[in-house]
Amino acid sequence: MKVVTTIDELQQELEKYRTAKKKIALVPTMGYLHDGHLTLAKTARKDNDIVVMSDFVNPTQFGPNEDYESYPRDLKHDEKIATEAGVDYLFVPSVEEMYPTDGGIRFEAGPASKILCGASRPIHFNGVLQVVSKLFHIVQPTHAYFGQKDAQQLALIKMMVRDFNFPLTICSVPIVREEDGLAKSSRNVFLTAEERKQAPTIQKALQQAQKEFLQSHDKDKAIQIAKTMIESETSGKIDYLELRSYPDLQEIHPETRHFLLATAVYFSNVRLIDNILF
Amino acid sequence: MKVVTTIDELQQELEKYRTAKKKIALVPTMGYLHDGHLTLAKTARKDNDIVVMSDFVNPTQFGPNEDYESYPRDLKHDEKIATEAGVDYLFVPSVEEMYPTDGGIRFEAGPASKILCGASRPIHFNGVLQVVSKLFHIVQPTHAYFGQKDAQQLALIKMMVRDFNFPLTICSVPIVREEDGLAKSSRNVFLTAEERKQAPTIQKALQQAQKEFLQSHDKDKAIQIAKTMIESETSGKIDYLELRSYPDLQEIHPETRHFLLATAVYFSNVRLIDNILF
Repeated sequence: MKVVTTIDELQQELEKYRTAKKKIALVPTMGYLHDGHLTLAKTARKDNDIVVMSDFVNPTQFGPNEDYESYPRDLKHDEKIATEAGVDYLFVPSVEEMYPTDGGIRFEAGPASKILCGASRPIHFNGVLQVVSKLFHIVQPTHAYFGQKDAQQLALIKMMVRDFNFPLTICSVPIVREEDGLAKSSRNVFLTAEERKQAPTIQKALQQAQKEFLQSHDKDKAIQIAKTMIESETSGKIDYLELRSYPDLQEIHPETRHFLLATAVYFSNVRLIDNILF
Repeated sequence: MKVVTTIDELQQELEKYRTAKKKIALVPTMGYLHDGHLTLAKTARKDNDIVVMSDFVNPTQFGPNEDYESYPRDLKHDEKIATEAGVDYLFVPSVEEMYPTDGGIRFEAGPASKILCGASRPIHFNGVLQVVSKLFHIVQPTHAYFGQKDAQQLALIKMMVRDFNFPLTICSVPIVREEDGLAKSSRNVFLTAEERKQAPTIQKALQQAQKEFLQSHDKDKAIQIAKTMIESETSGKIDYLELRSYPDLQEIHPETRHFLLATAVYFSNVRLIDNILF
């Protein structure tokens, strides 16, 4: 595996594979890799000739009071995990390499970016689309891999690729969990021992809500069951817990066939997300 | 020359040239082609293997009270001009082909899009960047050609390509004029005979202002000279007449080396633009 820090070098490396019509996969990450990323990379490895993983904590998707500075970073660890997954190129640009100039142009991710996670993070998805579109142009992958854990991000990136005609395919990979059911996250390391013990309740609460909804079709009741469970069994504070249509993220209606049941819960300052697609 | 109406067909046609590493030029237009477009296409022809011209009146760059419906269209005429210029593919998609879905994601073209033409057309450049980025992804050109006449559009597209890492080169072509100096425009056909006679004053006024500024370095005096000339010698109403730095479109300061002197003038409902880069 080669670690590359500049756009020019990465493009020079990839040019020969593009000419040879190889399948090039991009796995965008913010680093501090865990088993979720590993699964993404292994899936990409299986189905492509070349795997590029980007490892970049993107400042433009963090709000002023969010955890950009304290977001965990460990490049040596990332190199080890990426090598193990069979990544060919680990792209680790600096902020200056990614954002040397700024003419003020932005993506406005629209109504579907203002709900769920976007309700409390108003510029988050604008920044996500900005960096992801840049990475798409830099790497020009044939396939790009995103985890289902960030379901709203996945939906918005699929929309962007569809509506802006990006010439690539978006592939998604199911949530990878700890043995007790907690969704893997780079932020899990910041939980206290007690919070870590409580956190698997998030998944159990979503499962209860799903079960209730499939039986009664009563959305409000289903959501209330999950909220009560999280509030009574953990110290977590619910940011949102919602049932939406997927992938368009609209309010559900009788014709809705694909559902996203998603939540974000704060444990102290650590914000955890989880969801079920059904 | 082949006229193509669907994205799929165009991409199938272009695939072989991409594989063979040919230089592919894109010349985006809204049709009703005049000598300005012809010059763009001929320049593209000279420097590339394949020339794709798009011919699409993009609804998303027109405001609700603008001339989208009445914008002139003449496909037969366009086919003739494009053939004459040596265009290989004339891409003429329908609105449904270009915008079959809408997840609500937009470009926000930023501060440099709110001045000059953008001051009276607040969503115009958002729509321009939307359609141009779509065309870049559909055609995947190595080079794209834009006229200097739309200087603010050219500057914003260059910014977008630079800041979002689009893998192509933007080429610009000088303004093409009628014999009396009026900049060629698809909208010129809507001028009355009297207005048409007065319209060349726009260029003369800009030339006077440039001369004054180069002598006195007095921006306000230079602009006033041009405004007075247009107001006293024509029935035109000035939308704006400004001197800015180029290509960043900021207020000028003592270190500014490249200038854009630009104006928009209404003759009845016809909005004409012109500029000098120096």
